[in-house]
Amino acid sequence: MSTIEEMLRTYPKDLGDIDQATLTDCIAACLECSQACTACADACLSEDMVAELTKCIRTNLDCADLCATTANVLSRHTGYDANITRATLEACRTACAACADECERHAEMHEHCRVCAEACRRCEQACAELLGSL
Amino acid sequence: MSTIEEMLRTYPKDLGDIDQATLTDCIAACLECSQACTACADACLSEDMVAELTKCIRTNLDCADLCATTANVLSRHTGYDANITRATLEACRTACAACADECERHAEMHEHCRVCAEACRRCEQACAELLGSL
Amino acid sequence: MSTIEEMLRTYPKDLGDIDQATLTDCIAACLECSQACTACADACLSEDMVAELTKCIRTNLDCADLCATTANVLSRHTGYDANITRATLEACRTACAACADECERHAEMHEHCRVCAEACRRCEQACAELLGSL
Amino acid sequence: MSTIEEMLRTYPKDLGDIDQATLTDCIAACLECSQACTACADACLSEDMVAELTKCIRTNLDCADLCATTANVLSRHTGYDANITRATLEACRTACAACADECERHAEMHEHCRVCAEACRRCEQACAELLGSL
Repeated sequence: MSTIEEMLRTYPKDLGDIDQATLTDCIAACLECSQACTACADACLSEDMVAELTKCIRTNLDCADLCATTANVLSRHTGYDANITRATLEACRTACAACADECERHAEMHEHCRVCAEACRRCEQACAELLGSL
Repeated sequence: MSTIEEMLRTYPKDLGDIDQATLTDCIAACLECSQACTACADACLSEDMVAELTKCIRTNLDCADLCATTANVLSRHTGYDANITRATLEACRTACAACADECERHAEMHEHCRVCAEACRRCEQACAELLGSL
Repeated sequence: MSTIEEMLRTYPKDLGDIDQATLTDCIAACLECSQACTACADACLSEDMVAELTKCIRTNLDCADLCATTANVLSRHTGYDANITRATLEACRTACAACADECERHAEMHEHCRVCAEACRRCEQACAELLGSL
Repeated sequence: MSTIEEMLRTYPKDLGDIDQATLTDCIAACLECSQACTACADACLSEDMVAELTKCIRTNLDCADLCATTANVLSRHTGYDANITRATLEACRTACAACADECERHAEMHEHCRVCAEACRRCEQACAELLGSL
């Protein structure tokens, strides 16, 4: 069992009727995507053609910040407010979709963009599934 | 002139037709609100009646994270993506409104909740104004 | 191969003589610990005896912030500055040690503190190993 | 009175013998520097000579993350742990000094680097003063 699952399992109060597997997957996808976007922005910075990757870097940075914040919001259950969770997931899904689109444009030329685009798509999908289950 | 304004003024490319004063105010309001929410969560932790403030603490923590991320997104202009900016501002406005509501419930008893609620209302309003101008 | 490893493998320039397995483990440990601390602070908030867990919650919040920042710093390789990396790892190790100590005090009574303490110890150790290899 | 000061004044328990003006200044300097570094990284991205600014961008990103985390740690007073505060301030001071050095190299050519370098120096100094007073 992952630490994310263990922390969810040991939460002392009722988690309501949220699907715990969907929630766990979404937290894991947010953490993975945040790290991949931080690393992809840095890898783009080290490319000789960095001047053609500036939109990719910027979108990576926004996506990294939003995924990190979303992982935090989803890791809290006390005093749950569905409006905050929904709006946060929408923002995260939007950033992941935009970052996947942007990275895919460079995926054939830059392997880090390919790996990052895949992490963004997984996170976009995980946010959509969690939103659908709320 | 504040550093936020100076950084905006020295951005080397065209900022488009965004209202720079509205943008500056929103970044400042996000930073103020993020700090106030972090401090309010901590002040609530030190109240003897902390057990009655757990929803307030949790909402403070979400609001602090979202305001910090929103300040970051708004401080970037390269490769602008209106969808990301809008969804981020919506999430921030939602969290600020919820946190202001929650803190106002304790504002008469706890001065830190009163101060924090005012920062949340300012940030909620600043996000709404920036959203309206985009 | 994990996404962390793939992002490291696809970095376009020379990574220097850093031990890539040690670096990968440390980034993974920071992400795991940051999430566990965020979740443990929230789980403590939902305990009936929250008033006795306020130091644990505060230390969790500091540790979560430092681990997230450390994961970011370690995910960047361009323009490497050993002083920043070292000082960041020292701060992270210090917070993880303090948070592990604090959570261990409640580990028999609260399972989330036990799980979180283990994540903190892993991260403390991973930071120490990476510091030793720099 | 700033919101930072008001939140400090309304903290419900004893703050110990910390110098509140020095603490307030340091939190404000961290928030200012974090925003300036985020904006400077983005302004560098939009320079035609971005390829010569990659170390500046990377150092800006590290400094922004560390300043934001330091502002959070300094905004908490419950269950104070001097070791965490000291190590965090050391890391922040190190990053601010490195980022100021780097930005100063480009200050004559890029005004955003000049403004950012000044914010970094103020924050480096504020961290040093707070460290000296602990």
